Amino acid sequence: MAEQKATNITWHDAAVTPAERAKNLGQKGCTLWMTGLSASGKSTIAVALEQVLLQRGKHAYRLDGDNIRMGLNKNLGFSADDRAENIRRIGEVAKLFADAGIITITSFISPYRKDRDAVRALHDAAKIPFIEVHIDLPIEEAEKRDPKGLYKKARAAVAAGKGMGFTGIDDPYEAPSNAELVLPSHQLSIAESVQKCLDILESRGLLKA
Amino acid sequence: MAEQKATNITWHDAAVTPAERAKNLGQKGCTLWMTGLSASGKSTIAVALEQVLLQRGKHAYRLDGDNIRMGLNKNLGFSADDRAENIRRIGEVAKLFADAGIITITSFISPYRKDRDAVRALHDAAKIPFIEVHIDLPIEEAEKRDPKGLYKKARAAVAAGKGMGFTGIDDPYEAPSNAELVLPSHQLSIAESVQKCLDILESRGLLKA
Repeated sequence: MAEQKATNITWHDAAVTPAERAKNLGQKGCTLWMTGLSASGKSTIAVALEQVLLQRGKHAYRLDGDNIRMGLNKNLGFSADDRAENIRRIGEVAKLFADAGIITITSFISPYRKDRDAVRALHDAAKIPFIEVHIDLPIEEAEKRDPKGLYKKARAAVAAGKGMGFTGIDDPYEAPSNAELVLPSHQLSIAESVQKCLDILESRGLLKA
Repeated sequence: MAEQKATNITWHDAAVTPAERAKNLGQKGCTLWMTGLSASGKSTIAVALEQVLLQRGKHAYRLDGDNIRMGLNKNLGFSADDRAENIRRIGEVAKLFADAGIITITSFISPYRKDRDAVRALHDAAKIPFIEVHIDLPIEEAEKRDPKGLYKKARAAVAAGKGMGFTGIDDPYEAPSNAELVLPSHQLSIAESVQKCLDILESRGLLKA
């Protein structure tokens, strides 16, 4: 009987193709790479977008500080090298998720253009759609929000002569010049930002097989 | 009109739950961790299993040397530390995929019990099912197969007094003592091995929401 059951099992030598995955999932895998200042709203938009996609029967997954910094990247600090390695690893994992057919949403400050462009190149080389989403909140607005008091702390550290390397205060945020989508989060509701993400996914044919 | 569309968008603050993902995908995320000697058949079984799962409308993804060693782990060598870090990262990524609801199949020699047990502990802590699958081919059989001539090379290196640290030849393979599934790949067809993997997924309720 075990043998009879086993006769139902057939496969081919080649790996599963992206088209086969897309057909199975009713969507095409891709990476939505959210970049922006601390408190700009990246995670809030990502959480809402993921839920809305799931409500619509799509399959999305978020990579963010919560599931990366304490796990895969727990052996990285905040030196220049470690920051670059942090983004490199996240980019590689996002690429794997997208290759698996998932709509992958990352939300990391990712302040350096060079690091983001390397992730884009990685996706381009594998022909996996990469959508850079700049959550474009002016630094003044981010400082006004400051829900975790991080800007206040960074300003105090700088005033005391002890730099923290905090993005936007004493470390640069290099805004994307070629983002596929720019969301000025002080001028848009969360729902509007989510809708714009859905629109770009839709317009690129990523929400169907 | 943009606003009207946006009124369809609702979400809650909490993250998506595993149950919500399971319902969406018709399965529960888990990790099938294949371990065994070089040439034992890990990848062959993994490739076949992935395809059979996809044929049945399930969502599986393989992590293997091809997509990990040249990507996420391309900055790791073969020192003891790097080997441990290799498995640690793969374990973290498998956990993320399983958390995303995917049936995740890894195929790496992963010779050290300590490294595999650390990956198991990671999954246990997150209440994510972890199924260790020992592809149990005796070393003599693996050497007979030797499709890439690696055993021959390793034997020659040892004979010349230059160790390679090749698993089974001059580096230990620590067989699992608590594997959920043992597949003696010299006694089973590929189809039978795949069927046994399906059976364990089924018996644990992982092929339904």
